Amino acid sequence: MAERIARGVFRTETPVMVESYAAVVGEKEGQGPLGSCFDEVISDSHFGEDTWEQAETRFQLEAVGLALGKARLCKDDIDIICAGDLINQCIGSAYSVRELAMPFFGLYGACSTMAEGLLIASLLADSGAAQRTAAVTSSHFSTAERQFRFPLSYGGQRTPTAQWTCTASGAVILSRSSGNIHVAGGCIGKIADLNITDINNMGSAMAPAAADTIMRYLSASGTSPGDYDLIVTGDLGTVGSSLLLDFLLKQGVDITSRHRDCGAMIFDAETQDTHCGGSGCGCGASVLCGHFLPMLEREEVHDILFAATGALMSPMSLQQGESIPSISHLVHLRKD
Amino acid sequence: MAERIARGVFRTETPVMVESYAAVVGEKEGQGPLGSCFDEVISDSHFGEDTWEQAETRFQLEAVGLALGKARLCKDDIDIICAGDLINQCIGSAYSVRELAMPFFGLYGACSTMAEGLLIASLLADSGAAQRTAAVTSSHFSTAERQFRFPLSYGGQRTPTAQWTCTASGAVILSRSSGNIHVAGGCIGKIADLNITDINNMGSAMAPAAADTIMRYLSASGTSPGDYDLIVTGDLGTVGSSLLLDFLLKQGVDITSRHRDCGAMIFDAETQDTHCGGSGCGCGASVLCGHFLPMLEREEVHDILFAATGALMSPMSLQQGESIPSISHLVHLRKD
Repeated sequence: MAERIARGVFRTETPVMVESYAAVVGEKEGQGPLGSCFDEVISDSHFGEDTWEQAETRFQLEAVGLALGKARLCKDDIDIICAGDLINQCIGSAYSVRELAMPFFGLYGACSTMAEGLLIASLLADSGAAQRTAAVTSSHFSTAERQFRFPLSYGGQRTPTAQWTCTASGAVILSRSSGNIHVAGGCIGKIADLNITDINNMGSAMAPAAADTIMRYLSASGTSPGDYDLIVTGDLGTVGSSLLLDFLLKQGVDITSRHRDCGAMIFDAETQDTHCGGSGCGCGASVLCGHFLPMLEREEVHDILFAATGALMSPMSLQQGESIPSISHLVHLRKD
Repeated sequence: MAERIARGVFRTETPVMVESYAAVVGEKEGQGPLGSCFDEVISDSHFGEDTWEQAETRFQLEAVGLALGKARLCKDDIDIICAGDLINQCIGSAYSVRELAMPFFGLYGACSTMAEGLLIASLLADSGAAQRTAAVTSSHFSTAERQFRFPLSYGGQRTPTAQWTCTASGAVILSRSSGNIHVAGGCIGKIADLNITDINNMGSAMAPAAADTIMRYLSASGTSPGDYDLIVTGDLGTVGSSLLLDFLLKQGVDITSRHRDCGAMIFDAETQDTHCGGSGCGCGASVLCGHFLPMLEREEVHDILFAATGALMSPMSLQQGESIPSISHLVHLRKD
């Protein structure tokens, strides 16, 4: 059972555990500062397929397959998988789950999808409806740029606040009976909208959502940043991260020393020309599964908040004059 | 708590209840055979807004507002809302939830979204993480046709197997403490793919998913069609419905007398020129909330299975030669 401690905020009583996880990334991500921590680096951006969309599906399948293998599980051992991605109609996930043949909940949370999936997957197991669940997500530079911005062959200039959509996937398997990291609580995001309309400034669009979610979790749980080893955001990048710290400081909360952002960590902006950092569902997912979960496993940290952020932006609604609504979901992960 | 009775199938032990619900439809749906059962019929397809996408958001807001009003609740009483729609990036839902300011899980299940939302929302409440949750979805003829098929002004011919995307929204509020209809169990769908590539033949694409889900629920729960008053599918339409009955008959299961399909019911195909019937997330949602939940309320039926079906089709993947993966989620609703 979980316990509701405030609106949209819960802590667990009988914790659901992380049984296994894996991260698979593309070549550029493999060349970044975290390159050595990922389970696999795939140098072919097509992953042997005809299209980038099919390649993104393969990244998901690879991540799920590796996570299953590490725990010596087979596909049929997963009761329910929660999956989503950035491609229209979430086809990266639909085609990967078609192959996995698992009961499937499709999610759309943009780059917050890994945290959304972890929250739903853990509460599904917590309710008793499932014994073992999974969450997976992915992004691909080439599928996302084509869909949200310009065809790659157009060679559009990137603005200073732009981020680089990661080619990556992360998968987590949750279980009621096995594992030593557990989901200790969570906070379901509310939509924040700073009235930003620049599709190359998503970090700024998402920062208020992260601030709101982190504040709601701290407040409902009666904790302060010092109670956590790390407070990790998904893909705010450098501009969004500094905005987040500012927003929280104005509310009297200083997370500066504990804050890490997956987007700001995955690339070396100086040498990799990625401007404000990485982004995409696969960014937070792969850094969580390649870097932070292993840190928990090795007991270098014991308590982390993972607040993935999503810009629910749509090329069509932006053309119609709308701004970018954003959301951030938070998962509290603990190893005692 | 819920009890896992098979992979992806559960029944509830302490049931979550339907506290309130509402359905809002467009003019054509209001003129159909079920017209008088909906809470509101909106004759302006723009619902007073500048764009059809904004209109779809208003349909959701209206449905949620009416459902809240019937139960004398306010927005803040909802702990978590699960919402999704057909528009790319699910913006119909993102913009409605921005206004509702509720903790929000975004879903993508195409036309299965109402059942997906009900399953997740009920299990979130069941786990104890929330006291009161909501599920809402919508579709709009004009947003869907433009996105998935042709611009309306092109005046494309509709093929005999085509269905008419409903302009409609349905919202359900679930609660741990109040209501007399309850969620008795559910089955999470697996992807089925009949290798159909015709975007005007979604009923056929979705029928195998519905058959699989219904069979899995009957088998896991040890029940037969005779144990239910009605077995309702979302929007298979006439062609998909007859395929579903055939698939099940071949497996020795006859649901003919108990089967109803929201898509086949919402329009009069003869006089409304809708070919195989209605479709869209809003179709199953509005017929559930306008017709079937009131039937349960009035005790004309006591046990129904609601199996909404979704064709996870993407114009891009179809252009790339892929087929349409489909899914169906089932919710068992009961009034004792």
